[in-house]
Amino acid sequence: MKPITITNTRVIDVRFPTSREHIGSDAVNKDPDYSAAYCILETDAGIEGHGLTFTLGRGTELCVSALRYLTQFVQGRTLESLTSNLNAMYLELTGDTQFRWLGPEKGVIHLACGALVNAVWDLYAKAEGKPVWRLLADMTPEQIVSAIDFRYIADALSPEEALAILRKGKEGQQQRLAEIIAGGYPAYTTSAGWFGFSDEKIRRLCREGIADGWTHFKLKVGGVPEDDLRRGRIVREEIGWQNRMMVDANQKWGVEEAISRTRQLAELQPWWMEEPTSPDDILGHARIRREAAPTRIATGEHCHNSVMFKQLFQAGSIDVCQIDSCRVAGVNENLAIILMAAKFGIPVCPHAGGVGLCEYVQHLSIFDFLSVSGTMENRVIEYVDHLHEHFRYPVKIRRGHYLVPTDPGYSCEMLPESLNKFSFPEGEVWKEQELETSLAQK
Amino acid sequence: MKPITITNTRVIDVRFPTSREHIGSDAVNKDPDYSAAYCILETDAGIEGHGLTFTLGRGTELCVSALRYLTQFVQGRTLESLTSNLNAMYLELTGDTQFRWLGPEKGVIHLACGALVNAVWDLYAKAEGKPVWRLLADMTPEQIVSAIDFRYIADALSPEEALAILRKGKEGQQQRLAEIIAGGYPAYTTSAGWFGFSDEKIRRLCREGIADGWTHFKLKVGGVPEDDLRRGRIVREEIGWQNRMMVDANQKWGVEEAISRTRQLAELQPWWMEEPTSPDDILGHARIRREAAPTRIATGEHCHNSVMFKQLFQAGSIDVCQIDSCRVAGVNENLAIILMAAKFGIPVCPHAGGVGLCEYVQHLSIFDFLSVSGTMENRVIEYVDHLHEHFRYPVKIRRGHYLVPTDPGYSCEMLPESLNKFSFPEGEVWKEQELETSLAQK
Repeated sequence: MKPITITNTRVIDVRFPTSREHIGSDAVNKDPDYSAAYCILETDAGIEGHGLTFTLGRGTELCVSALRYLTQFVQGRTLESLTSNLNAMYLELTGDTQFRWLGPEKGVIHLACGALVNAVWDLYAKAEGKPVWRLLADMTPEQIVSAIDFRYIADALSPEEALAILRKGKEGQQQRLAEIIAGGYPAYTTSAGWFGFSDEKIRRLCREGIADGWTHFKLKVGGVPEDDLRRGRIVREEIGWQNRMMVDANQKWGVEEAISRTRQLAELQPWWMEEPTSPDDILGHARIRREAAPTRIATGEHCHNSVMFKQLFQAGSIDVCQIDSCRVAGVNENLAIILMAAKFGIPVCPHAGGVGLCEYVQHLSIFDFLSVSGTMENRVIEYVDHLHEHFRYPVKIRRGHYLVPTDPGYSCEMLPESLNKFSFPEGEVWKEQELETSLAQK
Repeated sequence: MKPITITNTRVIDVRFPTSREHIGSDAVNKDPDYSAAYCILETDAGIEGHGLTFTLGRGTELCVSALRYLTQFVQGRTLESLTSNLNAMYLELTGDTQFRWLGPEKGVIHLACGALVNAVWDLYAKAEGKPVWRLLADMTPEQIVSAIDFRYIADALSPEEALAILRKGKEGQQQRLAEIIAGGYPAYTTSAGWFGFSDEKIRRLCREGIADGWTHFKLKVGGVPEDDLRRGRIVREEIGWQNRMMVDANQKWGVEEAISRTRQLAELQPWWMEEPTSPDDILGHARIRREAAPTRIATGEHCHNSVMFKQLFQAGSIDVCQIDSCRVAGVNENLAIILMAAKFGIPVCPHAGGVGLCEYVQHLSIFDFLSVSGTMENRVIEYVDHLHEHFRYPVKIRRGHYLVPTDPGYSCEMLPESLNKFSFPEGEVWKEQELETSLAQK
């Protein structure tokens, strides 16, 4: 087979004006414009790798700039030179001797790295004619392990332990494949409970959610205590006690306030309390978990790399591991995290929503089920019902479940017309806003 | 007094081609071009606030871009509106609802925040006609505490505990002031032991260091074990056992390798082992410290915020706290860290070198001595002997001690001719290199 060469790379700043409708609002992120630093790897083989990292609007240009720099590493390379040693690619992208200072492995440069690593996986899967979940599930345990950087995590998970987990994961894989193709992967909805929504809107959306077959609902908290409780009671009134409700404080509290607020919210019997405090506070989460028991503690969407996840596991900080497809450096680092979660017996329930995150994480959870944990029990993928129309292969949801994607790639390819219309600042939708703002000022 | 208004802000990308001489090389950072994202706050009062964040070359443009965004928050503001509530300023800069996603409080956006916060302190101190250390030492305990964000650290250090430490710190302050003005603050040199230096160069520089009155020498390690030991023995041959030697692995190892390598290096009797593993690995450092005892463990230059420092203290991870003046968001966050270190009884020995870091951190250590810890015992500030000529108020070193700076401000104002010559990519020194490269290619 003729080698596939990356002949050109393009990076795009794409932003959706979601803040106009309070979509995505929570106690901390009050006005997100869901956005992405997006890259396209063009090849000489008629296929393209697409990857993005999710952002909230302002500052996307930083990730775009970082991504422009990082794409130089793959420009002119053959796909095979990247996929033959996936960990070498990861080390190259995260180890640049000058760039690395800006992290290491965190923040803007790591977010950008996630977009590029994901684009390579998209291209890899398209070249193999498989969705990413299938590409991963078909790999040998040795291949998966060779994609992982064990330097800083081997004290918690050795390559040998990872191999043992993955070998066991091969058992019964065909049966699980049939099961998930038939029934899909369970999901929960965040769309009913945004912080900026009125009580009535929450009530209506819960009703609609129940009618659509949802069984897990998340509510944003972190306002004044009475408001949180009142809103939570509305959700319970609508969804009953047989369905599950989660609450999410989006890092609003210090450790001690998180403990008392989590205790207060216990009457709602939340299935988990999400992001009660700073995402960096491993020991703080461990204390909250101990002192606010039995409420289960979840975090991860702002956890910036596998070293932090390792410690969340080691310290007994969490009951639920919320991986994010973009914040850590893409598929490679998420493989490490999913395997550590399995070793420590912590269920992975990915963070999604934003733009493209649902499209991405379904692949990771399906791989987790097929090859690692072997179970969907107590596992759900977040789902938010907007911006999917911009994707060529949008997620498919049926009665609160993600249906297994079948198209080759990593599902995150945006439609060219969406990329044009929402590109910032030159896209049509932003030009219009500029015009409106300038008219309003006159 | 007429209020001082910030009438204009300027942001500059300034880079020094230090990699040409292997200055600053270590096991991980092999070819740094010491650089800075630099900002100037112009006012209507004839004074300017200057601030920088230190970087290694490539990627500085990201900090510059972030800094350009953040300077909008101070543009047109009066100095008094910023200094009357210093924590509000910190919260505003770190809490931007969209920008925050790129951290929070870490990486590029936090580095940029450091530059701006430091520039405000520089302006503040100049307006008061004092060096920053003096401005801090003259503040009441209540004023210092009001500059600190306790949201995520109050479980380790409450405002009341901080006040108690600072009130105690007022006792004997005048006497300590006289002492430090007379003798300066002890320093150590890193200039003799860069990774890229030959054995002979290390030997020569150690000899010169001893002749110049240095008593503390740091050696970069993390190469092959025999090399590290051989180089360490050379240092010991030259400095003897009555002087102190520190070793620095710059994050090279995983936890288990760090333990065995630290044990191997114990024959050198290092005064501390610095950055043995990932800077994010709080629990890893704690384990290394336990299992490689009695070698003392140091880290901090890559510790990205006060929540991480809090946990290093809580977990018993370190014997030495190495604050950095830029990586965390400037003076405000360093006040929190210095106070936490005091509560936990851990000596603060700042990271410096790079460009401007020595100029900055001397103020923080002097404040620590005058107002917090009250002692210089087992405390040293890092010193590296290059790039000081670019500053208007360069550090003064005498026989291995920093002399107390007396000029108003935070000492980090670069000379206009240096800013011009080294600005990237348009400065003279980079234009020359471009020409050389292009000639070499012909």
